Amino acid sequence: MLAGGGGGARLARGFTGLLQQVAPLVVTNPGDDFEYLGLLVCPDTDSVLYAVSDEIDPIRGWGRCEESWGVLDEIKRLGGPGWFSLGDRDIALHLMRRAGLAAGQTLTEVTHDLLARLGVEGLPVIPASDQSVQTVVHSTDGVMAFQEYFVARGCAPQIKELEYRGAENARPNGALLSFMAAGCDCVILGPSNPYLSLAPILSISGMVDALSQVGVVAAVSPIVGGDAIKGPLAKIMGEKGLQPTAASWANEMKKMYPNLINLWVLDVADAECAEQMRAGGDAVLV
Amino acid sequence: MLAGGGGGARLARGFTGLLQQVAPLVVTNPGDDFEYLGLLVCPDTDSVLYAVSDEIDPIRGWGRCEESWGVLDEIKRLGGPGWFSLGDRDIALHLMRRAGLAAGQTLTEVTHDLLARLGVEGLPVIPASDQSVQTVVHSTDGVMAFQEYFVARGCAPQIKELEYRGAENARPNGALLSFMAAGCDCVILGPSNPYLSLAPILSISGMVDALSQVGVVAAVSPIVGGDAIKGPLAKIMGEKGLQPTAASWANEMKKMYPNLINLWVLDVADAECAEQMRAGGDAVLV
Repeated sequence: MLAGGGGGARLARGFTGLLQQVAPLVVTNPGDDFEYLGLLVCPDTDSVLYAVSDEIDPIRGWGRCEESWGVLDEIKRLGGPGWFSLGDRDIALHLMRRAGLAAGQTLTEVTHDLLARLGVEGLPVIPASDQSVQTVVHSTDGVMAFQEYFVARGCAPQIKELEYRGAENARPNGALLSFMAAGCDCVILGPSNPYLSLAPILSISGMVDALSQVGVVAAVSPIVGGDAIKGPLAKIMGEKGLQPTAASWANEMKKMYPNLINLWVLDVADAECAEQMRAGGDAVLV
Repeated sequence: MLAGGGGGARLARGFTGLLQQVAPLVVTNPGDDFEYLGLLVCPDTDSVLYAVSDEIDPIRGWGRCEESWGVLDEIKRLGGPGWFSLGDRDIALHLMRRAGLAAGQTLTEVTHDLLARLGVEGLPVIPASDQSVQTVVHSTDGVMAFQEYFVARGCAPQIKELEYRGAENARPNGALLSFMAAGCDCVILGPSNPYLSLAPILSISGMVDALSQVGVVAAVSPIVGGDAIKGPLAKIMGEKGLQPTAASWANEMKKMYPNLINLWVLDVADAECAEQMRAGGDAVLV
């Protein structure tokens, strides 16, 4: 399963109830990763880690539950950069990540280690690549790193183009290729933003080809009842002149990745849309 | 003034009331510095920073007042190294230090920047050297880094020999040499542990020669009424077969640094000892 930070993380959490039936692998989006306070922040990966360990804050939908903010409050008081919300428990995990990387572990190894420390077994989570892939937003307000667009600017700038810097030179995570070589029945594209969460994964050199080998490639709609459940997807679709419907999401996915997806998963709120897609020849689960 | 972490930091704080009369420079001990959680921890320097900014915890005598422990609690929960007590506000300062060093600032520049962020003006604090000097304890329990001896082992091992690793190749801080070249009336060796706090500074190549140029070199006794105010000094003197008195402290200082100190400062509790020293030809302030 490919997961972004919000919907993808929640769907990944759902697998923890199915571990007797399936042996899943969750592949996370590295495009949001950035350096902050000297720490490597991996927002989407961490949302998955916290979701599958039941440590995610259920209200915010990101970060740790029962969080405190002692470090960030003091960083702000000292005039440091306080624009990105890392709580104290979150910072603890980030310090452990940095220690692992400094000791020579790969990001995959560090992620595996953090997952074990969070008490999760049987649900491996890996970044899509151990090489850097960075989502860069070319907007009407200029070129900016993803987190500047997403957090500092609150998704206000209008996107002209998205760049997945490093993707061409990156390779799919070796653990993903081994997993697939051992036999993989189904790829699930989680209900994540196609442009901001799935594209950084799927733009990695060789990724689409590798996933295409699998019999069932299902995409779960992040659009329910004419709106995105969370995040800027509806706004971005609007900027592209698209209605924020499950049908136009599916059309976009077909345009972006022709012949990759052969099963579409829609919410019951979009049963009518599902009927139309079926009439057009698509396989749709509701 | 040369300052260790405890008594030195408190004496440095005293200068903040005298800034109309004197223009001091506080030189801190780099021998305790070590890497922890990927952060450069400078315990003695930070004790001075927190003391002169009135941010030190008055009960513990180290670390920040009104501190919280969210990060460290979580580090321990994740099975990480939680043996050294860094609170959340403290970690904020350490993250800022790391960011400054990563941006290419020297430790002196970073320390100056942190002091300004803490709101302190007119009382510069600098590490004794920008090069690394590390206090290494050769003990009956083996060779160990200073913080392992001091914090992890609670000063329990018996010291056989102290090594100030890197001191021979280090140079006195350029800012100290400039300060002295501009005219310095008095050097004060703070009431700090001679072996653990002052020796790492004074063992830096060229340091004693530089300080000897100054007219008055005063040493303030860390021994009051037959005991160390804080820390393991009395225990260490006992291991060396010395009584923990101001007189034997002064004798040790004379042996370690012949012809450096020409004024001794003792507590009123040691007036009798002061009389004996005066009888022996020493200049003593009580």
